[in-house]
Amino acid sequence: MKTMNTRRFFAAAFVGLAVLTSTLARADDPLPSWNDTNTKNVIVTFVEKVTTEGSAQFVPPAERIATFDNDGTLWPSHQMYTQLAFALDRVKALAPQHPEWKTKQPFKAVLDNDLEALGAAGEKGLVELIMASHAGMSTADFEKIVTDWFDKARHPRFKRPYTELAYQPMVELLEFLRADGFKTYIVSGGGVEFMRPMTEKVYGVPPEQVVGSTIKTKYEVRDGKPVLMRLPEVDFIDDKTGKPVGINKFIGKRPIAAFGNSAGDREMLEWTGAGSGARLMMLVFHDDAKREYAYGPANGLPDTKFGTFPESLMKEAKKKGWVVISMKDNWKRIFAFER
Amino acid sequence: MKTMNTRRFFAAAFVGLAVLTSTLARADDPLPSWNDTNTKNVIVTFVEKVTTEGSAQFVPPAERIATFDNDGTLWPSHQMYTQLAFALDRVKALAPQHPEWKTKQPFKAVLDNDLEALGAAGEKGLVELIMASHAGMSTADFEKIVTDWFDKARHPRFKRPYTELAYQPMVELLEFLRADGFKTYIVSGGGVEFMRPMTEKVYGVPPEQVVGSTIKTKYEVRDGKPVLMRLPEVDFIDDKTGKPVGINKFIGKRPIAAFGNSAGDREMLEWTGAGSGARLMMLVFHDDAKREYAYGPANGLPDTKFGTFPESLMKEAKKKGWVVISMKDNWKRIFAFER
Repeated sequence: MKTMNTRRFFAAAFVGLAVLTSTLARADDPLPSWNDTNTKNVIVTFVEKVTTEGSAQFVPPAERIATFDNDGTLWPSHQMYTQLAFALDRVKALAPQHPEWKTKQPFKAVLDNDLEALGAAGEKGLVELIMASHAGMSTADFEKIVTDWFDKARHPRFKRPYTELAYQPMVELLEFLRADGFKTYIVSGGGVEFMRPMTEKVYGVPPEQVVGSTIKTKYEVRDGKPVLMRLPEVDFIDDKTGKPVGINKFIGKRPIAAFGNSAGDREMLEWTGAGSGARLMMLVFHDDAKREYAYGPANGLPDTKFGTFPESLMKEAKKKGWVVISMKDNWKRIFAFER
Repeated sequence: MKTMNTRRFFAAAFVGLAVLTSTLARADDPLPSWNDTNTKNVIVTFVEKVTTEGSAQFVPPAERIATFDNDGTLWPSHQMYTQLAFALDRVKALAPQHPEWKTKQPFKAVLDNDLEALGAAGEKGLVELIMASHAGMSTADFEKIVTDWFDKARHPRFKRPYTELAYQPMVELLEFLRADGFKTYIVSGGGVEFMRPMTEKVYGVPPEQVVGSTIKTKYEVRDGKPVLMRLPEVDFIDDKTGKPVGINKFIGKRPIAAFGNSAGDREMLEWTGAGSGARLMMLVFHDDAKREYAYGPANGLPDTKFGTFPESLMKEAKKKGWVVISMKDNWKRIFAFER
């Protein structure tokens, strides 16, 4: 009995110690979903450097601007952009009011689930779909449509609401930066008013820190009440060279850290890197077909229509010291629901 | 002697008490440059109402958005808009590189100081002047040009830098609101990049909280360094119906308080007032020719080209409960330098 008790005692003590150690480790670690690789170390070192008063690379809080692309950087951009899934669902929902869509492209392609015909409609077709599904209502009505859609829509592979698909390591990174006085912005090619209804809840980013593409709106007084009507006209495309333009227009400060995942983020990272002082530029690389997706075409991975990471971007990253995040190697888990 | 001592004692005590009382009053009073009128009371009551937890009209900090017009609301818009004075100075500075301007309107009018010919050039002429003086350089170069101009330029009447002409009561109001958890924005018809170099210093409003008119910019890599070049093309006019559009685009939340002074602010106040819950809409009325300027044409004051306050706006203000601030009656002092 004595031996048993001793063994029990040691076993209990060991379990207790293990729990304690793990709790302490988690408490100390602002990025628990990141593997302990150099990539994680680069982030922590950068933040220490710019937040340590007296350090040569100290950056005052007002200048601690960090910008994040959304699709493919904070949540999946596959099997298609979330906003495109929304547009297709909207076109289907609106189809009864548009009998002409049965025979008119690109709408016919959507109603027939004919992805090949949809692809053939190209960018022009895409803009037509966006305008038909995103314009013609007030901003308040659009917000409700988007919110309702996020409540009901499910990702075809993960069978969960899109709002549960934020990359957990990136959510931790956003929180880590904010805890250190950073102001975190989303700078996305996606529509501002498509993102705003969910960014606070999903990423902790308030509406006024969402930079993105916009369509024109018009102020009108209807039945004595002012409304902003969404017009079927592009106002601004916040992608590629548009990203530095959007950052300058909406924020008016150059970021000291920028995070992207595709050719659409190249100029944002260039613009960020061209400032003086400590900088952090990172690109999420989708190399994890098992847990998420794998595409490039960089590093010999398959090409893609959504969020291309070309070899030229990989080369530029290496040349300029941008850190490429391997989802497979650097992320302990990808989604919060994994455990 | 005894009598003297007693009198001295009382005199000293009285002075001491007076100083103490005045110090206490000032310490308690967040708006010392406002006269103790109902207007001041309306502001203080509104702020108490929306910031008292448990109150029916409590507004959480994230929703405490206050928007301020700039010209005529936070600083003078007479004798002309500050940005127009800048444009005219720039045209004169650039004239040696443009010999053709000597004979070409509206430039000739500027070089001849011919305000009548300038007026005849109308809005089209104005846009030409703005484009010639505000475009063709990088955003960084423009910022330097603006900063240098603010250092050197003096207001023709007050003989001081424009940055010293902020209305002290409005600066106190901005600070009062921020101390109570409000996020204060400028929403001006003026150019964003003309205002940003001075708003933090003058109003405590950081660059990312300046909404205004914009011209297009283009991302380019010059000598290996990325720059944003300012193009001679209007991107967005943040005036009249443009103000709610700009508020929605840049902030994405409806203000609960809005401050203006002219017909250009009407829609911003309508949009703010159309939200539910406690609201505060105010208009600065320039009725103080002695200390600043007096114009309307509302209330029979002279008409003006800069910051018109028409009778119809006065009527709408009365009908909708917008508070009209009389500079003459409501403001103890107008500028910080007054004493």
